Amino acid sequence: MDANASLKTPADIRRLIRDGHYSGHTSGFAPGYVQANVVILPEKYAYDFLGFCQNNPRACPLLGHTEAGATELPRLAQDLDIRTDIPKYRVYELGQKVSEQTEITSLWRKDLVTFLIGCSFSFEEALLADGIEVRNITENCNVPMYVTNQACHRSGVFGGNMVVSMRPMTPKDAIRAIQICSRFPSVHGAPVHFGDPQAIGINDIKRPNFGDAVSIKPGEVPVFWPCGVTPQVAIATARPDFCITHSPGHMLILDIKNTALSSF
Amino acid sequence: MDANASLKTPADIRRLIRDGHYSGHTSGFAPGYVQANVVILPEKYAYDFLGFCQNNPRACPLLGHTEAGATELPRLAQDLDIRTDIPKYRVYELGQKVSEQTEITSLWRKDLVTFLIGCSFSFEEALLADGIEVRNITENCNVPMYVTNQACHRSGVFGGNMVVSMRPMTPKDAIRAIQICSRFPSVHGAPVHFGDPQAIGINDIKRPNFGDAVSIKPGEVPVFWPCGVTPQVAIATARPDFCITHSPGHMLILDIKNTALSSF
Repeated sequence: MDANASLKTPADIRRLIRDGHYSGHTSGFAPGYVQANVVILPEKYAYDFLGFCQNNPRACPLLGHTEAGATELPRLAQDLDIRTDIPKYRVYELGQKVSEQTEITSLWRKDLVTFLIGCSFSFEEALLADGIEVRNITENCNVPMYVTNQACHRSGVFGGNMVVSMRPMTPKDAIRAIQICSRFPSVHGAPVHFGDPQAIGINDIKRPNFGDAVSIKPGEVPVFWPCGVTPQVAIATARPDFCITHSPGHMLILDIKNTALSSF
Repeated sequence: MDANASLKTPADIRRLIRDGHYSGHTSGFAPGYVQANVVILPEKYAYDFLGFCQNNPRACPLLGHTEAGATELPRLAQDLDIRTDIPKYRVYELGQKVSEQTEITSLWRKDLVTFLIGCSFSFEEALLADGIEVRNITENCNVPMYVTNQACHRSGVFGGNMVVSMRPMTPKDAIRAIQICSRFPSVHGAPVHFGDPQAIGINDIKRPNFGDAVSIKPGEVPVFWPCGVTPQVAIATARPDFCITHSPGHMLILDIKNTALSSF
C-alpha cells in the first residue's frame, strides 16, 4: 500500500486512518513501533476485565488502560483518539459480533474504558531482525490461532480457555526464539508449548480456529505462543451487554518502540 | 558422604582432597559454588587449545587458564594447587588414557598449562532451584552424553564433533530451562537441540556414549546441551603426546558462586 511508504510516524498513520483514508490491516506499518490489541468495555466490567489481564499476563499483557470516558492515552501515544484511530472496529452485544465499523464516534459513551494489550507483531519483528523465519509472514497470511484446553484464571465474568498462535520452526530456531521472546514479556513473552498439539488440546493443526493454516516443513515443530485473541474468547464467554474491539489484524499503532518493551 | 555435611567452604573441600581424604565424585558438594572441567596440556598445544575453546564457546566455555607451570589461579580460587586439589585425574599419552591418579605432583612439568571449563552442575542447580526436575539427579546417575554429528570449529590439531548432555523434560519445563540456562553462557548456556535425536546424529537415545541412560516419560522430549566432555573428544582426536584431565564427575571446586556467572 503506497500510503505506507510515504508515512513517517505512527501519528501520521493514525491521522490517515482518522481521516477515513485507510481501513485495512496494519501488519508491516510503522516498522519498529508497538501495535496494540484493543478492548473497550462499559465501566461496570472494568474491574473484572483488568483482573482477567492481571491473572493471565502471558495471554493478556496489558500495555495501558484508560479512565472511564477517556479517549486518549498520552503515555502511549500523543494526539490519539481511540474512537477514530483504529482502521476497523468490531462491535459486540451479549458476546455476539453485531457490526464492523471504521470509527465508533456515534457509539461512544462516557462509561467506556479502553484496554490496550500487547501484540505478537512486536516479537515477530525481533525474530525477523535475528534472521528467524516467521512462516505466516513468509506465506503472507494471518498467523494460525487455536483455542487450547488450557483454562485461563477466571476474573468475575471473564474466563474461558487460552488461545495460542503457532509458528513452525526448527528446534534450533525455536530455542533462539524462546530466548528472544523472553526479553519481551509485555508482548506475550516466551512460548507456552512446542511439539505435540494434542498435549494442549489442539486436535487438528491444519484447521486453526482463527487465522490461516501455514505449512510445517520436515524437521520443524509447531511452537505455540499465548495469543491476544484470548480476551475475545473471554468476551464471548462473559457476554457483556456491550463491547468494542479492534478487528483482528487492524491494530492501534502507538508511539512507543518495540525495543522499549525489552526487559533487558 | 559424611565429610561433606561438615565442610563449609570450597577451600575446606579442596584441602580435604589435597590431604588424600577424599577421591570420589563432587556432585552435590559445596552447593552454590562453581565446579570446573579441567584440561592440562603442554605449552606447545596451549594456543591451539585456547583457540578451540574460543571457537566453540558453547561446548567449551572457558572460566580461566594459567601461564605455563602455574599451579594456582587466584582469580577463581584462593589457596589452590592444581596438582592435588582434584579428587581424580586422568592421564593421557597420544590421546589414550594410560592411568587414573589422585594427585599429579610427580607428573608436573614447568611447561604445563591448565584450562578450566564451565560444567553443567552450575545450571542444574539453577534448574532445581526453579523447581525443574533434572532426571539424572532424580535417578541418581551420571547425565547421559552423546557424540553428535555436529562438527566443532577446528583449531590447529583440535577438532572433532560436539558432545551433548541430555535431560528429558516436558515442553513447558524445556521452555523454562532454555530461559534459565540462557542466563549462564559460561556454563554452556541454552540447549542446542530438542526432540528428534537423529537430527543431530544420535541413533540410539538409550545408548549414550558417556554416562548413563535415563528414562524419558510420555509427554517429554529429550533436550540437548553442549557438553564439557567435548574437549576430551578433541583430545582423543588430536592425540597430544601428554595430557591430564579430571576424571568425569570428579571436578575442581572453585571459590566463585554459580550466581556470579549469571549474565543478567
